[in-house]
Amino acid sequence: MTKNPFGVNLTLLPALVPPDYGAYAQVIIDEGIKIVETAGNNPGPVIRQLKAANITILHKCTTIRHAKSAVKLGVDFLSIDGFECAGHVGEHDITNFILLNRARQDLGVPFIASGGFADGYGLAAALALGAEGINMGTRFMCTVEAPIHQKVKQAIVDAEETDTALVMRRWKNTTRLFSNEVTKQALKVEKESKTGEFAEIAPFVSGKRGREVFLNGDVNFGVWTAGQVIGLIHDIPTCAELLSRIEKEADEALNRSRSLYTATPQSKL
Amino acid sequence: MTKNPFGVNLTLLPALVPPDYGAYAQVIIDEGIKIVETAGNNPGPVIRQLKAANITILHKCTTIRHAKSAVKLGVDFLSIDGFECAGHVGEHDITNFILLNRARQDLGVPFIASGGFADGYGLAAALALGAEGINMGTRFMCTVEAPIHQKVKQAIVDAEETDTALVMRRWKNTTRLFSNEVTKQALKVEKESKTGEFAEIAPFVSGKRGREVFLNGDVNFGVWTAGQVIGLIHDIPTCAELLSRIEKEADEALNRSRSLYTATPQSKL
Repeated sequence: MTKNPFGVNLTLLPALVPPDYGAYAQVIIDEGIKIVETAGNNPGPVIRQLKAANITILHKCTTIRHAKSAVKLGVDFLSIDGFECAGHVGEHDITNFILLNRARQDLGVPFIASGGFADGYGLAAALALGAEGINMGTRFMCTVEAPIHQKVKQAIVDAEETDTALVMRRWKNTTRLFSNEVTKQALKVEKESKTGEFAEIAPFVSGKRGREVFLNGDVNFGVWTAGQVIGLIHDIPTCAELLSRIEKEADEALNRSRSLYTATPQSKL
Repeated sequence: MTKNPFGVNLTLLPALVPPDYGAYAQVIIDEGIKIVETAGNNPGPVIRQLKAANITILHKCTTIRHAKSAVKLGVDFLSIDGFECAGHVGEHDITNFILLNRARQDLGVPFIASGGFADGYGLAAALALGAEGINMGTRFMCTVEAPIHQKVKQAIVDAEETDTALVMRRWKNTTRLFSNEVTKQALKVEKESKTGEFAEIAPFVSGKRGREVFLNGDVNFGVWTAGQVIGLIHDIPTCAELLSRIEKEADEALNRSRSLYTATPQSKL
């Protein structure tokens, strides 16, 4: 695929039959990968295994408590993921305005900001709150190069920030999804099920059908994740255009903030 | 109380027997108030009444749709209130990272940022997203001058960002409260009530008992609102100390962002 260096993401999800994550980690080590993003539940064993192989670890988390545990385990830097994000939002619903600022106050290791970012205004705001940079998922889905069906990209462009929904809270595995027909059916089952058995909702939240959406372009074929940031996305640029635009916007945002903000205590002296 | 100018807030809340808001607005006009903050449901009639009397109106809202309606009604500027805020969060749960940026993209009138602010890092981030300033509630409750019991201020200092809860979603009147014993009881009733009658939860969410908390200092006496920002608050400064600190922090945040951000497209030319 590429001769250039790349990182690997290893997300530890709750599952009826958990995959052998230790074996996955060993393959990552054997293949000589230098940087891994970890995320999810009980990452301790996997982080220890990867650190022992001198791999640089970026750990993604949605709470400060989990971030602190990861720092103790020796991760190199963190990805702080706010409630506005796509996919697994965690169970505490703390937004990035709080979470990034708390990370700045408390963590003592560098962090990047995840969830809610699509442009240079967001980048400038994340830097102000103490982040070293931003991580974008949904925004990159909506670029020329993203290997997903054009109809999915267009659905993101057409969507508003209110077009996502949280599913699976009942099972403490809360996930932010694009609010399509299947998502609405899943939410109905979640709300009305008398048994509370996960099996009742399982056919609706199948990741297999969700992956088909990206190939066949039928945005209602299954569930797929999307962040609230879909409301900020209005076009499908190339990655080069997007990154160049973000540079310009962040510069503009910093200049505007500085121009509004002239009365510093220092300047009065 | 004061000979200096001051503004008045008029929040239109759902109620079994709605107050005569038109009469309230007339008193505001008769008393010569020059600036009013409006908020809540169906503000049209009150906004028209106040605008006809040449009053400057700041309208607070939690969605872009409501913000646009308010702009059409002629409000002068907006207060954009994210999901992280204390009190009425609305029913769409859009966070300030999305909401402020959307306001910047779409509204065409000036706006300030509400919900999630306690310091100059937050101020700098809000300016980057397009706001003209910030509005702080919970942070000012935790100052020397705030006329509330010291034990309430200490409870805010001791709290973490996870110590708030959303109550009354079932009645589409969702409110973020400090997560005390009464809040937990109210949530239990809300979850378990077979009838869904508001009367079942009413004794637990009584504003009357909540106001008593501020006088008697028993933080479990009733429900009281608090934003996720309680996690960022660690002391009880005077207002003067707080504002001076915020100035310094915003300056520091802007300088740090600028120092991280050197590779502008312009600088390459």
